[in-house]
Amino acid sequence: MSDDAPKFDGLQCPLPLRDYPTVQLAHGGGGWLSKMLVDDLFLPAFQNPALAQLHDGAVLETPLGRLAFTTDSYVVKPLFFPGGDIGSLAVHGTVNDLAMCGARPFALSTGFVLEEGFDMEALWKVASSMRDAAQEAGVSIVTGDTKVVDRGKGDGLYINTSGIGLVPEGVDVRPERVQPGDKVLLSGEIAVHGIAVMALREGFALESEVLSDSAALHELVGGLLDRLGARVHVLRDPTRGGVASALNEIAQAAGVGMLLQESAIPVREDVRGACEILGFDPLYVANEGKCVAIVEADAADEALSILRAHPLGKDAVQLGEVVEDTHHQVHMETIIGGRRVVDMMSGEQLPRIC
Amino acid sequence: MSDDAPKFDGLQCPLPLRDYPTVQLAHGGGGWLSKMLVDDLFLPAFQNPALAQLHDGAVLETPLGRLAFTTDSYVVKPLFFPGGDIGSLAVHGTVNDLAMCGARPFALSTGFVLEEGFDMEALWKVASSMRDAAQEAGVSIVTGDTKVVDRGKGDGLYINTSGIGLVPEGVDVRPERVQPGDKVLLSGEIAVHGIAVMALREGFALESEVLSDSAALHELVGGLLDRLGARVHVLRDPTRGGVASALNEIAQAAGVGMLLQESAIPVREDVRGACEILGFDPLYVANEGKCVAIVEADAADEALSILRAHPLGKDAVQLGEVVEDTHHQVHMETIIGGRRVVDMMSGEQLPRIC
Repeated sequence: MSDDAPKFDGLQCPLPLRDYPTVQLAHGGGGWLSKMLVDDLFLPAFQNPALAQLHDGAVLETPLGRLAFTTDSYVVKPLFFPGGDIGSLAVHGTVNDLAMCGARPFALSTGFVLEEGFDMEALWKVASSMRDAAQEAGVSIVTGDTKVVDRGKGDGLYINTSGIGLVPEGVDVRPERVQPGDKVLLSGEIAVHGIAVMALREGFALESEVLSDSAALHELVGGLLDRLGARVHVLRDPTRGGVASALNEIAQAAGVGMLLQESAIPVREDVRGACEILGFDPLYVANEGKCVAIVEADAADEALSILRAHPLGKDAVQLGEVVEDTHHQVHMETIIGGRRVVDMMSGEQLPRIC
Repeated sequence: MSDDAPKFDGLQCPLPLRDYPTVQLAHGGGGWLSKMLVDDLFLPAFQNPALAQLHDGAVLETPLGRLAFTTDSYVVKPLFFPGGDIGSLAVHGTVNDLAMCGARPFALSTGFVLEEGFDMEALWKVASSMRDAAQEAGVSIVTGDTKVVDRGKGDGLYINTSGIGLVPEGVDVRPERVQPGDKVLLSGEIAVHGIAVMALREGFALESEVLSDSAALHELVGGLLDRLGARVHVLRDPTRGGVASALNEIAQAAGVGMLLQESAIPVREDVRGACEILGFDPLYVANEGKCVAIVEADAADEALSILRAHPLGKDAVQLGEVVEDTHHQVHMETIIGGRRVVDMMSGEQLPRIC
């Protein structure tokens, strides 16, 4: 942590309680308020180097080797949505967090918080879906826990999955490695998961059905790391807060700027239309089957062809590049030739999207 | 799994939905209904050898060595109780699950599910308490996640902690190692945590304040394993469902019976009094700082003196012994000279105790 990080004296809450005396939905949205909660409250409380990296998971030097460890709770609403459900999402999301640490996923845990009265058959469907997703991804669910809370104190079912994985020799992905000149790659079309869930939740009929892109990315990413090793500088799956928030987090952690080309951003026509009607900017909408890869400049072409050779990366593009910027901002050259700042999400756009 | 385990064909929920079409509070209580949910729904869904051991965590053979991995969600109500809070409990509980796998705890993750409107200062107190508990136990909280759910869809705060640890050479604790002749040891007075929480929740004034026994047991248990190695056959912390349910689970997994001496069960007078008034049998009340150790017969005396030399084990006793029993039951010789079956808890005695 930097020297101007809030001091945690154990006596006083370091957050400005005047501004936010209680938890807001946006504290979980992946934008500024989420970042404030983590930076000002959790980081000072739990301070340690692994957590301070603010990666999708922690990479730990153990007596046995490098181990990645990650956790995520899933509170998506509704539980079942086009292209997946909370069970498959809970497997894919945590597998992806491990993959973004450069790790080969090894095992998952699952913790259920069930609401009294939840339909048992729905629970079975979710468990069944977790099983299928885990089998397909080649990981085992090895340990679990179930708690039940009284009626009205939950929303059917919340799932936490945590995961462990092994980081191969030669892999070193973390924001600090990103430097000016690096290229910013994206594995495919954005905003699909968020629109699939929001369209259902809002009862909004799309012309064509949009299925969530929820998928396990470890093979896609594994292929990249096998071939390019340490030339891959950072990986991130842009979930809550979307591509914009993910890139801002990396820029700040790495102390760099980024310059994106709006014309390069892949958005399906139907998804773009839905975003317009619902009032969302696709850059801030959650993805569950896409990744950002920032690689050495002269590895970018090879990285793109590796990504495109995999079904989950067939629409991969170069979004832009890393530049020097003392303000650590993300800028975008717009289609009409202007230039604008792509900030972190400021409020809560899509509550309970994952 | 045995051959008569329910088949999971992916088409039909294997639970008898006629009897339990929805989730009951008791499905999370640690008794029979919890066991049914795990045995009939989760195990068939997620089938794999590590999960099927039904230990407090999984011990995984990795290319790097033996790794313990465990998860627990904490939904205790109220969040703050005499002797601890949900934060310290979430650290102690998961450290203890690792310790009961014979592992040295290495790192924890934490996942928060916050309810919109939750008091920010209370969140800080909980995080602060987690930090203190983790520091005291010598483990780091290395990765985390926060989700926020809308008002009325949570109960302030739920926490998941997962943990990883390394299992030293020569340690081999698992129910299958338990055999007739082994001695059943218990590290101290039972039912304290459950009574501390329930007395507060029920607004029941005890003569003396009962503080939760919530504590990290890895050093107590580590001392035992350092000295006795593989002569320690199984370890278990009797949380939800209490000592009775923990011993029944072990007896069934090991295919043995047990014979306990009622006169040996350590229960404080004030706790016993509170149990009587509240209508609880202390054998079924949750503990958060006690462990059961089942050891080779001729290691029992040494084990007891090792336990008693540690502050958290000073009241350690031998509860009874493992016997042959084709019904895999736990029996107790009562103080008045009778003998009765100590069954698993059948309903929900203490909802949301941990």
